[in-house]
Amino acid sequence: MLAARIHEFNQPLRIDDIPIPQPQPNQVLLKVAATGMCRSDYQLLDGYFCAGLPVELPFTPGHEICGHVAALGSEVPDESGLRDGDLVIVNPNWGDGTCRQCHEGNEQLCGNGQLVGFGPNGGFAEYMLAPYDHLISVADQPDVTPAYLAPLTDAGITPYRGMKKLLAAGKLGADRTVVVTGIGGLGSYGIQYAKLLGGGSTVVGFARSAEKLSVATENGADHTVNVRDKSVDAVQDELEQLTGRRTVDAVLDCAGSPESLGLGASILATEGALAQVGLMGERVELPLFPFVSGEKSYFGSFWGNHNDLIEVLALARRGAIKHHVVPTRLADINDTLEALGRGDIVGRAVVVFD
Amino acid sequence: MLAARIHEFNQPLRIDDIPIPQPQPNQVLLKVAATGMCRSDYQLLDGYFCAGLPVELPFTPGHEICGHVAALGSEVPDESGLRDGDLVIVNPNWGDGTCRQCHEGNEQLCGNGQLVGFGPNGGFAEYMLAPYDHLISVADQPDVTPAYLAPLTDAGITPYRGMKKLLAAGKLGADRTVVVTGIGGLGSYGIQYAKLLGGGSTVVGFARSAEKLSVATENGADHTVNVRDKSVDAVQDELEQLTGRRTVDAVLDCAGSPESLGLGASILATEGALAQVGLMGERVELPLFPFVSGEKSYFGSFWGNHNDLIEVLALARRGAIKHHVVPTRLADINDTLEALGRGDIVGRAVVVFD
Amino acid sequence: MLAARIHEFNQPLRIDDIPIPQPQPNQVLLKVAATGMCRSDYQLLDGYFCAGLPVELPFTPGHEICGHVAALGSEVPDESGLRDGDLVIVNPNWGDGTCRQCHEGNEQLCGNGQLVGFGPNGGFAEYMLAPYDHLISVADQPDVTPAYLAPLTDAGITPYRGMKKLLAAGKLGADRTVVVTGIGGLGSYGIQYAKLLGGGSTVVGFARSAEKLSVATENGADHTVNVRDKSVDAVQDELEQLTGRRTVDAVLDCAGSPESLGLGASILATEGALAQVGLMGERVELPLFPFVSGEKSYFGSFWGNHNDLIEVLALARRGAIKHHVVPTRLADINDTLEALGRGDIVGRAVVVFD
Amino acid sequence: MLAARIHEFNQPLRIDDIPIPQPQPNQVLLKVAATGMCRSDYQLLDGYFCAGLPVELPFTPGHEICGHVAALGSEVPDESGLRDGDLVIVNPNWGDGTCRQCHEGNEQLCGNGQLVGFGPNGGFAEYMLAPYDHLISVADQPDVTPAYLAPLTDAGITPYRGMKKLLAAGKLGADRTVVVTGIGGLGSYGIQYAKLLGGGSTVVGFARSAEKLSVATENGADHTVNVRDKSVDAVQDELEQLTGRRTVDAVLDCAGSPESLGLGASILATEGALAQVGLMGERVELPLFPFVSGEKSYFGSFWGNHNDLIEVLALARRGAIKHHVVPTRLADINDTLEALGRGDIVGRAVVVFD
Repeated sequence: MLAARIHEFNQPLRIDDIPIPQPQPNQVLLKVAATGMCRSDYQLLDGYFCAGLPVELPFTPGHEICGHVAALGSEVPDESGLRDGDLVIVNPNWGDGTCRQCHEGNEQLCGNGQLVGFGPNGGFAEYMLAPYDHLISVADQPDVTPAYLAPLTDAGITPYRGMKKLLAAGKLGADRTVVVTGIGGLGSYGIQYAKLLGGGSTVVGFARSAEKLSVATENGADHTVNVRDKSVDAVQDELEQLTGRRTVDAVLDCAGSPESLGLGASILATEGALAQVGLMGERVELPLFPFVSGEKSYFGSFWGNHNDLIEVLALARRGAIKHHVVPTRLADINDTLEALGRGDIVGRAVVVFD
Repeated sequence: MLAARIHEFNQPLRIDDIPIPQPQPNQVLLKVAATGMCRSDYQLLDGYFCAGLPVELPFTPGHEICGHVAALGSEVPDESGLRDGDLVIVNPNWGDGTCRQCHEGNEQLCGNGQLVGFGPNGGFAEYMLAPYDHLISVADQPDVTPAYLAPLTDAGITPYRGMKKLLAAGKLGADRTVVVTGIGGLGSYGIQYAKLLGGGSTVVGFARSAEKLSVATENGADHTVNVRDKSVDAVQDELEQLTGRRTVDAVLDCAGSPESLGLGASILATEGALAQVGLMGERVELPLFPFVSGEKSYFGSFWGNHNDLIEVLALARRGAIKHHVVPTRLADINDTLEALGRGDIVGRAVVVFD
Repeated sequence: MLAARIHEFNQPLRIDDIPIPQPQPNQVLLKVAATGMCRSDYQLLDGYFCAGLPVELPFTPGHEICGHVAALGSEVPDESGLRDGDLVIVNPNWGDGTCRQCHEGNEQLCGNGQLVGFGPNGGFAEYMLAPYDHLISVADQPDVTPAYLAPLTDAGITPYRGMKKLLAAGKLGADRTVVVTGIGGLGSYGIQYAKLLGGGSTVVGFARSAEKLSVATENGADHTVNVRDKSVDAVQDELEQLTGRRTVDAVLDCAGSPESLGLGASILATEGALAQVGLMGERVELPLFPFVSGEKSYFGSFWGNHNDLIEVLALARRGAIKHHVVPTRLADINDTLEALGRGDIVGRAVVVFD
Repeated sequence: MLAARIHEFNQPLRIDDIPIPQPQPNQVLLKVAATGMCRSDYQLLDGYFCAGLPVELPFTPGHEICGHVAALGSEVPDESGLRDGDLVIVNPNWGDGTCRQCHEGNEQLCGNGQLVGFGPNGGFAEYMLAPYDHLISVADQPDVTPAYLAPLTDAGITPYRGMKKLLAAGKLGADRTVVVTGIGGLGSYGIQYAKLLGGGSTVVGFARSAEKLSVATENGADHTVNVRDKSVDAVQDELEQLTGRRTVDAVLDCAGSPESLGLGASILATEGALAQVGLMGERVELPLFPFVSGEKSYFGSFWGNHNDLIEVLALARRGAIKHHVVPTRLADINDTLEALGRGDIVGRAVVVFD
């Protein structure tokens, strides 16, 4: 089978022809149908995760996976309901099942867990293995498109979880403004969740290109601001013109760059909150006295758990989610990674297999 | 001025010609423009509130009030911004300002508070008095209709607050079902909040007439069930057909009858919650073992506070709220009260003044 | 081995000599060291759970289990860390692992789950089986007493979870009063959690015998009220004398009788909450208008989950929990069940094995 | 009367003899009995608050005030219950009463509010003025000591509110560790709240002198770490030895220096949270990937509101709070400010008047 693998950091992936792996007793072999491409795949190659998420080379990335069941391990129980040929998506976070976080259902936070595509080999390959109890069948939806389903497992759930944190913290609602920063793979979903969960919030998209801002508008943003090369003051002038206020109540930062975080932190209103899912930089700097005296909050939010994924699938099934998918081929994966690194992809690139 | 007053319980209101009252130093005299009519006005006359909310007779009910400033008390401060002729709505719950609830902003829960129309004379009169700091100016919205604004102060905020409790308790969201029971004055707004705050919840309206169910549909309900004379099982059969499940995650009960509460409690799923705003009965009975073993919750929710009202006004200003107003005249008030008592009003009856 | 089994409802358990069961691949055989006895064991025999939790006869109850590992199933993984002879407690709720509740970590709420001692045979036997991943090792604490550990798995966690619900709902804290009703097996722990989690709450124990009230006092209650044959008013008179208030902010009902629930619901202050863990009655009746106008809440709370158990174990390890254990023998089990049915046990009866 | 006033920033206060002020209609004249001294008084003089909280010179600082009613303004209502000679404390945050924050009861967050001692003249004077509705009478407690009461209004409530935020966020409880950083005026209370609200948390005090650490121990800390000149790793080594873990679940930072914040952010466990009340620095830097991938949170927490103050008073009344007061005289105020600036005060300095 073909697999696009890292042999060396900061070098292009190599497309290798390697044997199809055999499932362990509790694993399932998947014939991959579609695998989303994430900025974090570029960063993995770049070495950003070397300390936090080390991998053994050669390594196959790819963590947004939709595929068909090709073989079942010897001990996959009948009650799993999985059958040869079923279309499934992969819940990408495989916890150890024993820690506090796993017992809360937050396997993505497990200190001993595995994140597919950042440890176990991922979906930039024709076949891959996954534990049977981390597959979610979509076999009952014959008309679903793998290229739409695959990105839901990261780009789809990551901003969803972040937005739910803002909601749970009481930051969304009528008479509030929420900003989504970075209208790329994650942010194009993020805008939609701001509308779906916002309870009447005014939704503003921040991005650095007209093309991305138009995705925000198409996905329901009430307003957009092109923040490229703008000072905080200039952005606040635009906000005031658009919303009547210079500050906002909630920010979902899908970029994670020093610029986006600095801007987000600067425009928060009293009791405002910034939830961060984007991961470009190394550190976040917050202004101390305004954060304390205005009781602002900063939340890290990471990927999503099983129930988050079930909820996003339910939204997709209702037709409540617009997908912005850019299909690509395994053969073109290095070009697409480069484009991701430059921030040039509008929507989500997805490797589609035959 | 004319005022419709209770002289005796269980007797029609009398329309009396009485002197216009004079504002105390901190009060404002309002020329009433529109006053909503509530089932609780019928119940006030009926004696339902005699123990909980006693009034001195003769008494003018009416608690959903929109009017114009006609005179300012001697000590109303300039900073209030109120000026003669301004259109205002009345925040109807006047707490004592000293208790825990008042210091949380929940004046409607103040043990020593006053509820206009249930203690202080209300808005079924050409003029009335209110404390200056419980008026919210809508003078900046020249095109607003008093008949739409008045009901927001009770019918508009009461189900909003109840729905926010369900949201805060984590009961709404994708892959969840929420039922609104009783599509009268409150429920016709309730359905809308289920959509606005539901985050992708499936919204089902329960009522006992086709006309009310069609209001639910018009206001966004995904499904409706006519529950008149149906057993719990029969209702669950319909739910299963409509939603794929026999149970629901959240119920906002806007009726409060023994039947509606019994049904709501019976169809709650594991971890489900019932928020009650309707007030027809005397007691609620819940099945003990299912409530405990399924960790279900029952929440009382009462009227709304200042911030709830600001939020509902913001939704109305965005055009996010549909109003179902049945205009009536002070002269016809007794007929309308009778119709309210019978549950025959579809939408909200509002007394409109010249 | 000997096992105390139900052959017929409403008949004494029979102590049978039956073969030691063999573990399935994922199971562990335990040599039982101690099994707590719960009022619900009496109720199981009584038929209370026939509808909700049916069992196949003959059946061995007993759900609060501490034992030593006697044999490991063929596929219990090494990573479980379990070794022959290890002392373990049994996490008693075995969910199906696939539903929303299981994915939140709330296996005790799983619709397809199994509760040991209410489906799978329990611990009123010399040996029993449990899935390896529902055992929690206490092998690192050589000096722990099985008779103290066993009750933590139900009597210890059930009021803990209920108290956490009251805490999470904001009902505990300085200047608040919390009542624990029913100072039996659960309530004697409940009082302690009211102090531990109460943040300075005034803690009042309600019971119907001086002996139980003295347990409450010993466990930290600030005040106690003997509620036997007292009217609500009489109880409120005592409360006023003891606490300066006639109402309370939170009630943890560990009895669940119509009397205890009626009393608890009647003394709740505005914004008060009643969490119920006791299960004697069939229905709960709440006064409707006070619950709505005072925004009171009623919460069912059921048993506890893995993390609850870990937390209670941590408290026990710190020496923060007083145990009131009444040791008994398997041979005497029917007498003890009778005493439980009458409410005559003060503290927790525990069957201790050699 | 004598008043210690700022005439120029970065210069000692001058003790001036000025006329006793006259109360406006809604004000009360207080004869000051005791006024706590805060590091922020030093910072006010230092110019730290010039941008955020500008004052007109000459200005009398002092925001932790306990005094006796000396005269009532002409319109202070009888219902206030205030009488000449009553001992009161001053709720120090005077909101405008119209914004969202004021309507939540969070006047300390009001954008147009006044903080006594940072705008209105404060309590480093023999007399001062305060609005009648921001006085809390303690006249019913004849034996209370003004020097103990005064600091409750800031040093007492500020860490209380911060700790409540950690509690509400689910970060405290059995099997958790909470650190309080900076055992000065605030932290000596903070340790006590960690025990009172911690629900069995392990409480660790961090400070930079043995004397402060012994206050932590005296106030209930399970462990203490002298962090002076220690690396993060060295602190974690000590933590591991003391608690068995290298990380902690919650940090209440009462220092607010770059060092304390850097350390606090570095030792947070997965899902950990840092609540900040200390205000020494200008910016906080958080490590981005660990905060996101571990879903950590950072909360600003500011002073406290009316209900927080009522709660802390209730704790004090129960004898649940230890006071560490260092009495001083108005004449010595500049020396004490210098000592505060150096961090040399152990406990709370309080100016006591005759």
